[in-house]
Amino acid sequence: MIHKLSKENHIFSFSKDYKTALFVKDGDEIEIETLDCFSNQIQTNEDKLEQMDWNKVNPATGPIYVEGAKEGDVLEVTIKNIEIADKGVVATGKDLGVLGDLMDGLYSRVVNIKDGKIIFDEKISIPIKPMIGVIGVSPREGNINCGTPGSHGGNMDTSLIGEGSKLYLPVFVEGALLALGDLHAVMGDGEVGVSGVEAAGSVTVEVRVVKNLKLVNPLVKTPEVTATIASDESLDKAVKIAVHDMANLFQSFTKLSIEEIATLFSIAGNVQISQVVDPLKTARFSLPNWVLDSYNIVF
Amino acid sequence: MIHKLSKENHIFSFSKDYKTALFVKDGDEIEIETLDCFSNQIQTNEDKLEQMDWNKVNPATGPIYVEGAKEGDVLEVTIKNIEIADKGVVATGKDLGVLGDLMDGLYSRVVNIKDGKIIFDEKISIPIKPMIGVIGVSPREGNINCGTPGSHGGNMDTSLIGEGSKLYLPVFVEGALLALGDLHAVMGDGEVGVSGVEAAGSVTVEVRVVKNLKLVNPLVKTPEVTATIASDESLDKAVKIAVHDMANLFQSFTKLSIEEIATLFSIAGNVQISQVVDPLKTARFSLPNWVLDSYNIVF
Repeated sequence: MIHKLSKENHIFSFSKDYKTALFVKDGDEIEIETLDCFSNQIQTNEDKLEQMDWNKVNPATGPIYVEGAKEGDVLEVTIKNIEIADKGVVATGKDLGVLGDLMDGLYSRVVNIKDGKIIFDEKISIPIKPMIGVIGVSPREGNINCGTPGSHGGNMDTSLIGEGSKLYLPVFVEGALLALGDLHAVMGDGEVGVSGVEAAGSVTVEVRVVKNLKLVNPLVKTPEVTATIASDESLDKAVKIAVHDMANLFQSFTKLSIEEIATLFSIAGNVQISQVVDPLKTARFSLPNWVLDSYNIVF
Repeated sequence: MIHKLSKENHIFSFSKDYKTALFVKDGDEIEIETLDCFSNQIQTNEDKLEQMDWNKVNPATGPIYVEGAKEGDVLEVTIKNIEIADKGVVATGKDLGVLGDLMDGLYSRVVNIKDGKIIFDEKISIPIKPMIGVIGVSPREGNINCGTPGSHGGNMDTSLIGEGSKLYLPVFVEGALLALGDLHAVMGDGEVGVSGVEAAGSVTVEVRVVKNLKLVNPLVKTPEVTATIASDESLDKAVKIAVHDMANLFQSFTKLSIEEIATLFSIAGNVQISQVVDPLKTARFSLPNWVLDSYNIVF
């Protein structure tokens, strides 16, 4: 069955305390309308970040209760389609992002999206590659604001979470309570300036409850690669967690020794960066799918 | 002119104190023979890391004096060809690499290279993608052992430093004093297990002294991308340095504001990891060449 969920149903943190916006069954498809990361407050170059309501950043549409999802399960979210608005916002500024030490004040600019490209300036147009910045489930207890990534997902800003990918999220509470938002028309790994091309839009996903997979942190599978995703205050620790998570996956599905796993990962796997600018930083450890296929790792 | 330099001319640290192994002119080509990172001590599965002489790791063939290279210049090293032996060594072990906490003792295995592939086990063969692990110039003062990366280059273990790439190194002393070694038949970004497929071989390079470029740290240009490379104790700092270095390049070649640079980098550039296992960690900030070409950044 195909459901629709409008952008009016949005939350600013992941928690089981919110009223459920939609109940769906295992296997259902949902078309989810989303606000941009500024709740659509920046529509023209006259709308300034300084005057914006900063309590309204990173909204996620949801929560969606998936029947049959129980603590300890995994929720598979297949991203079937992402529709992006015909304009987006780029933003940066003092103390924001990796170059924030070189700036004064805040900066934002509305850019048009035409024929699948961002018109950045008169010299450069950049092909779009739509992705979901914020996507996650409810934590076991309390609230995690939508700007923060973690084991529940959230603001992972991971460019692999785009059309054709399957995201796997550990389930902490009954129904999982999925929510998503913060679409990017395009974003580089690292998101070094603090934003991608932030855009409103809509996402069509299919949800499935997976029972034969144990995850502590999110995992994403694109048509090419499978990557474990981990967030921490330092990239060094995030990298360590992501590689250990992938080693756990191999230990649960194969008979390889840890030495074989470490050397295989060292030559065939890639440590990659998702973002370095949210309160926590996000790294991933990525392997080509043919490596997992060769060892019959299927879930 | 084409020179040859045999593997007998190797050093274990970068320093101006070594006797020059070869003098070449700006524009010359050199075929450089290299030992593997263990000085070819591991030839069969009976050769154990425990019995190896650990004072003989990461040899680099050189130093090569390039006429005309002066402090403040940049040395461009074009990698024209890499020949790899028909076998390599993979290694990992207790307290080595990202998974070293899960191991006891040291582990190494000799793998055969056939038809351009590493025979890893009966399930997987991995296509080779030869690269140079250690390549650098002399620091201004003192010795930097070949296992450590830095502004002078060294053990950057950067997969982009392969055939068809141009590496740009800041010159600190007269003649630059180039040396290289530690070839990998293939290595994943991160080199999480502590080694790639370590192999002996030979590298043909062309050297050129560049005067119109100011670099603090290395930069690499492949046929597809241009990346600044930085090393630090933490990945977080290495990332910051690499992005700042690229911003400096754009500020010296274009009229873009820092806000325009930060947003452009955020959507078109990628923070990437070279390695996380050497004494210092190495990150890079990579932009597609068409971005630099659009702004006429040529050196």
